Amino acid sequence: MKAYKEMSREELLELRDELKKQYRMMRGLNLSLDMSRGKPCIEQLDISMEMMDILNSSSDLTCDDGTDCRNYGVLDGLPEAKKLIGDMIEVPAENLIIYGNSSLNIMYDAISRSMTHGVMGNTPWCRLDKVKFLCPVPGYDRHFSITEYFGIEMINIPMTEEGPDMDLVEKYVSEDEAVKGIWCIPKYSNPQGITYSDRVVKRFARLKPAAKDFRIYWDNAYSMHHLYEDDQENILEILEECKKAGNPDIVYKFSSTSKISFPGSGVAAIATSPNNLVDIKKQLAIQTIGHDKVNQLRHVRYYKDINGIIEHMKEHANILRPKFETVLTILETELGGLEIGNWHKPKGGYFISFDTLDGCAKAVVERAQKAGVKLTSAGATYPYGKDPHDSNIRIAPSFPTLKDLTTAMELFTLCVKIVSVDKYLTVLG
Amino acid sequence: MKAYKEMSREELLELRDELKKQYRMMRGLNLSLDMSRGKPCIEQLDISMEMMDILNSSSDLTCDDGTDCRNYGVLDGLPEAKKLIGDMIEVPAENLIIYGNSSLNIMYDAISRSMTHGVMGNTPWCRLDKVKFLCPVPGYDRHFSITEYFGIEMINIPMTEEGPDMDLVEKYVSEDEAVKGIWCIPKYSNPQGITYSDRVVKRFARLKPAAKDFRIYWDNAYSMHHLYEDDQENILEILEECKKAGNPDIVYKFSSTSKISFPGSGVAAIATSPNNLVDIKKQLAIQTIGHDKVNQLRHVRYYKDINGIIEHMKEHANILRPKFETVLTILETELGGLEIGNWHKPKGGYFISFDTLDGCAKAVVERAQKAGVKLTSAGATYPYGKDPHDSNIRIAPSFPTLKDLTTAMELFTLCVKIVSVDKYLTVLG
Repeated sequence: MKAYKEMSREELLELRDELKKQYRMMRGLNLSLDMSRGKPCIEQLDISMEMMDILNSSSDLTCDDGTDCRNYGVLDGLPEAKKLIGDMIEVPAENLIIYGNSSLNIMYDAISRSMTHGVMGNTPWCRLDKVKFLCPVPGYDRHFSITEYFGIEMINIPMTEEGPDMDLVEKYVSEDEAVKGIWCIPKYSNPQGITYSDRVVKRFARLKPAAKDFRIYWDNAYSMHHLYEDDQENILEILEECKKAGNPDIVYKFSSTSKISFPGSGVAAIATSPNNLVDIKKQLAIQTIGHDKVNQLRHVRYYKDINGIIEHMKEHANILRPKFETVLTILETELGGLEIGNWHKPKGGYFISFDTLDGCAKAVVERAQKAGVKLTSAGATYPYGKDPHDSNIRIAPSFPTLKDLTTAMELFTLCVKIVSVDKYLTVLG
Repeated sequence: MKAYKEMSREELLELRDELKKQYRMMRGLNLSLDMSRGKPCIEQLDISMEMMDILNSSSDLTCDDGTDCRNYGVLDGLPEAKKLIGDMIEVPAENLIIYGNSSLNIMYDAISRSMTHGVMGNTPWCRLDKVKFLCPVPGYDRHFSITEYFGIEMINIPMTEEGPDMDLVEKYVSEDEAVKGIWCIPKYSNPQGITYSDRVVKRFARLKPAAKDFRIYWDNAYSMHHLYEDDQENILEILEECKKAGNPDIVYKFSSTSKISFPGSGVAAIATSPNNLVDIKKQLAIQTIGHDKVNQLRHVRYYKDINGIIEHMKEHANILRPKFETVLTILETELGGLEIGNWHKPKGGYFISFDTLDGCAKAVVERAQKAGVKLTSAGATYPYGKDPHDSNIRIAPSFPTLKDLTTAMELFTLCVKIVSVDKYLTVLG
């Protein structure tokens, strides 16, 4: 394969004609495919269907401590649910609060509470002139939306192959009291699939924040989401590391079963230090009488213990692995050697991160959309939707069938080629 | 029966000896009964157990519009869930947003959102010097806790037999721009069981608030909770009345199935005007990807339609009615003619409101507690836990068995008698 940048104007023009012909053909297929979000596919949802049989009208819905799960009560979650989710995220049960169906909602609540009531006795953020968050990029659009919604200034922190650029993180956190948090997806990150190295985790644990109310927002969304049984990434447990480093209160760890059981009908949790738990429960006691204990019980009785979840996740991996491999194969086959794009090869998580030549991402996404393939908006992986290089595109391979995914990726790579040719032609003038 | 106030010092002293003897006997029973919260009893929870069979592993979890309820998506609730809850609270489906398991949480969110982002473009409350709420009293402690948590000043509004004192409400709302809301439980109110009259509802609808962001917080908690099939109270539908009065945006209406299906595992909703819905959804889209649709579907398929709920509520009424009647009979038998207490005779809801002589409520609750019967704390029905007359006690008859309830009420009335005798003795000097 000849790299595009080596091609002459004539070669590029000829190539463009050929690519456009292919593109017109694909438009003729009237595709309607959605690769925009990290949605599990139908086969993945089917894996958990037996959970629907776990509770029936003859079930005893009493939990281990004697609580009738059908009634009011239990603010912070069933003990057995704390144990199950705790084991999943490697945190003792007593460090958890179980919430409703959405860890995003817990993060929202954490920020909202900090705005109106402050963190552990510190000044409520709404009374401060300026609040800032560090945002490793590319990252998760819904994180950035929360901080944007609350008027929090977001600062881009480039990702490296082993996590966020910690020199920058340390500098901002230690020097600027307005920096109150950082969004992290530490394992199989969204969108790159990067797992933070031990060195990075330890540097997080040892941060010396200028702000007493600085917290690491550790979104452990993909802790169990390995693609390969024999090639899994591991990560140091952050609460333990922070405790060891004398920084026990510096982190909120979030998790849920959204991509384990059913998105929207799972169980979500926060894990943090005893001091933070006391602080959070002051709000929680005002906010609700309690979350859905029946659903907590349903999850506990279905999975039984952490081994149940591990086995369950293998089934997810069996469905997701070929999809990831299909995407990677097509990227390699179609784009290898052309030097018009880079991509990660994740071992877990939900996404493949693709970088076009600078200034091409938006045009690629638009072109794919016109031919019926919906991708995550270009820019979505950056705060304010602004990718300074206009190059990052998040590919979400989970939802489409293998066949549709193949078609979609053929179209995607075709769009990358066309837009890249156009770019080089413009450069050549 | 001779009224206590007619008794001589000697008669009172003799009576006290006799009452104390009875009290010592009852303490000897080592009771441990809880009448503090409006919790359904086990028999009531059993009514809904077949809901657990509605979905199983062979169920098609696709809803009417084709959405797979097991996956992400649908921010504001399933259309059929909106229809069901809408019918329950007499509001068109398009005016609803379905949330998670707790209407209290929706109210909390509404206040929290108003603090940080304001209401429909108005100044966020956290930037105002003073925010005030009107609180009809006696009322619901968890309402008051939310406004207290956010530092909102609460103003007591006395309840009349047909609802809050509307002269006062109109005065405060029209004259004071800092008054941003009023907590209402308009039907079978907590704790008095009063249903607002048509006249009161119409006066609410016609309010002319000084503050553009004033809202009526209409907690329709007991809309279906009649005790008598042939003697039900009805209430004008507030959204419709507000619309007719040219005040379409003035009200948020809250509801849930907590005391219909399972407390903590039900479905909650807000109903309001299109303008308010747009405003709320801006937040909702940041806060969550969506609520638990599987549980929404479970409720819809179980009840089928409003008639399913109506039939279901008759079963609740059959269990609750004898409990309410037991309480009322014992109050009448034990306290009738003594002029040491007043109480309401509600036709629905969850509570019986009892008023002691001034200055006696705390002592009664403490005395009952010492003998093993836990009542709602005296003062709880007032903002800041401060009942200016120290007279209101909320009786929650739902949870105990009929036998326990009888014992508890015998103890309760005994405590009322003792404390009242003590009061008159003090007066006599």
